[in-house]
Amino acid sequence: MATYRLHCFAQSGNAYKVALYLNCAGLDWEPEFVDFMKGGITRDPSWRAANNPMGEAPVLEFEGRRYTQSGAILTYLADTTGMFAPGSDQERYEALRWILFDNHKFTSFYATHRFMNAFLPDTPNPAVMAFLRGRFEAAVGVVEKHLDGRHFMLGENPTIADFSIAGYMFYGPDESGIDIKADYPHIAAWMERMASLPGWKAPYDLMPGDYIAPRAR
Amino acid sequence: MATYRLHCFAQSGNAYKVALYLNCAGLDWEPEFVDFMKGGITRDPSWRAANNPMGEAPVLEFEGRRYTQSGAILTYLADTTGMFAPGSDQERYEALRWILFDNHKFTSFYATHRFMNAFLPDTPNPAVMAFLRGRFEAAVGVVEKHLDGRHFMLGENPTIADFSIAGYMFYGPDESGIDIKADYPHIAAWMERMASLPGWKAPYDLMPGDYIAPRAR
Repeated sequence: MATYRLHCFAQSGNAYKVALYLNCAGLDWEPEFVDFMKGGITRDPSWRAANNPMGEAPVLEFEGRRYTQSGAILTYLADTTGMFAPGSDQERYEALRWILFDNHKFTSFYATHRFMNAFLPDTPNPAVMAFLRGRFEAAVGVVEKHLDGRHFMLGENPTIADFSIAGYMFYGPDESGIDIKADYPHIAAWMERMASLPGWKAPYDLMPGDYIAPRAR
Repeated sequence: MATYRLHCFAQSGNAYKVALYLNCAGLDWEPEFVDFMKGGITRDPSWRAANNPMGEAPVLEFEGRRYTQSGAILTYLADTTGMFAPGSDQERYEALRWILFDNHKFTSFYATHRFMNAFLPDTPNPAVMAFLRGRFEAAVGVVEKHLDGRHFMLGENPTIADFSIAGYMFYGPDESGIDIKADYPHIAAWMERMASLPGWKAPYDLMPGDYIAPRAR
């Protein structure tokens, strides 16, 4: 068994945040498939009791303990391995600030927009989609402006803040319905830098789970 | 000038998370009014440049630096003052996990639901409100279950995780459109414990800004 076991599935950008970190950090890890997409396993009470009462992937297993919430996992891994760790106390809070922004204002709305766009059997309500898109645009604009003149979120070097924000960026516009690379040039350049890191792989190459073609809307 | 200055306004539950912490911790702080509700000041480029490029309250001023994102501020204050700090490294990640859950799954949808319910001039789209309410219900159910048998989020003692989750709980159902106390008994009992902490005050008694009567929907 590998040192780290990550419960994950290919469509989860929150899982991808951690999987990509583990792979780029060169840590000894293996995936454990979570059947969310077809099996809805994270709603199962016994899965929740064994893995995560919050009912979410990813779950990181390490030395018999289970860690959840991608931002807490990334913080834990940076603290304990030093890989992609912020360089000072001030940078530590700066990384946490962006991880919280990602969770609060970006992932919460963008990931939901993508899921409803690509994977819901019924056509999503247009007012809900417009609402989520508006929230996404406000948040992504903040990131785009921040990356103007910076190589990575905290400056010259990639940190856990970049892995958090990258989580949903590498799923294509066929899924998200939003062409980030075309619309946000500073984010597009940062994505190129992220994709150049040793160990980088696309979500569907890094995590288990069948590819599910997005619905045409 | 007080040791800590918190840029805040009475309607902001994210600001309340920090204001309530500062007051219950007995720290020397003063509020600085942010005219969000009537003036929309956080959208002003000069306000953003001076205070927070993310365009959000709260902002904590301390020793000439500015800190933002309530979860990062709470973590910083617990780390540096020891007040309501998690007791061990494991508890530290556990607190962060709940702070992220709060931001990601609870505040993001609940605060938006409340704002649209109480303060938007136009009647909000019913499909959007139903969507937000569904998201809220999934998240609040996780907190309700977690508090069954626990005094506070991490066990016997209150920590920063409680202050984060409390942020929007103490605004009434007239604003939120949701009667948390009536529907979630474990959360209601925990709210009583929070309100019994020395220094506890309701949002409108703790932070500056005119009371704005919620719209009847």
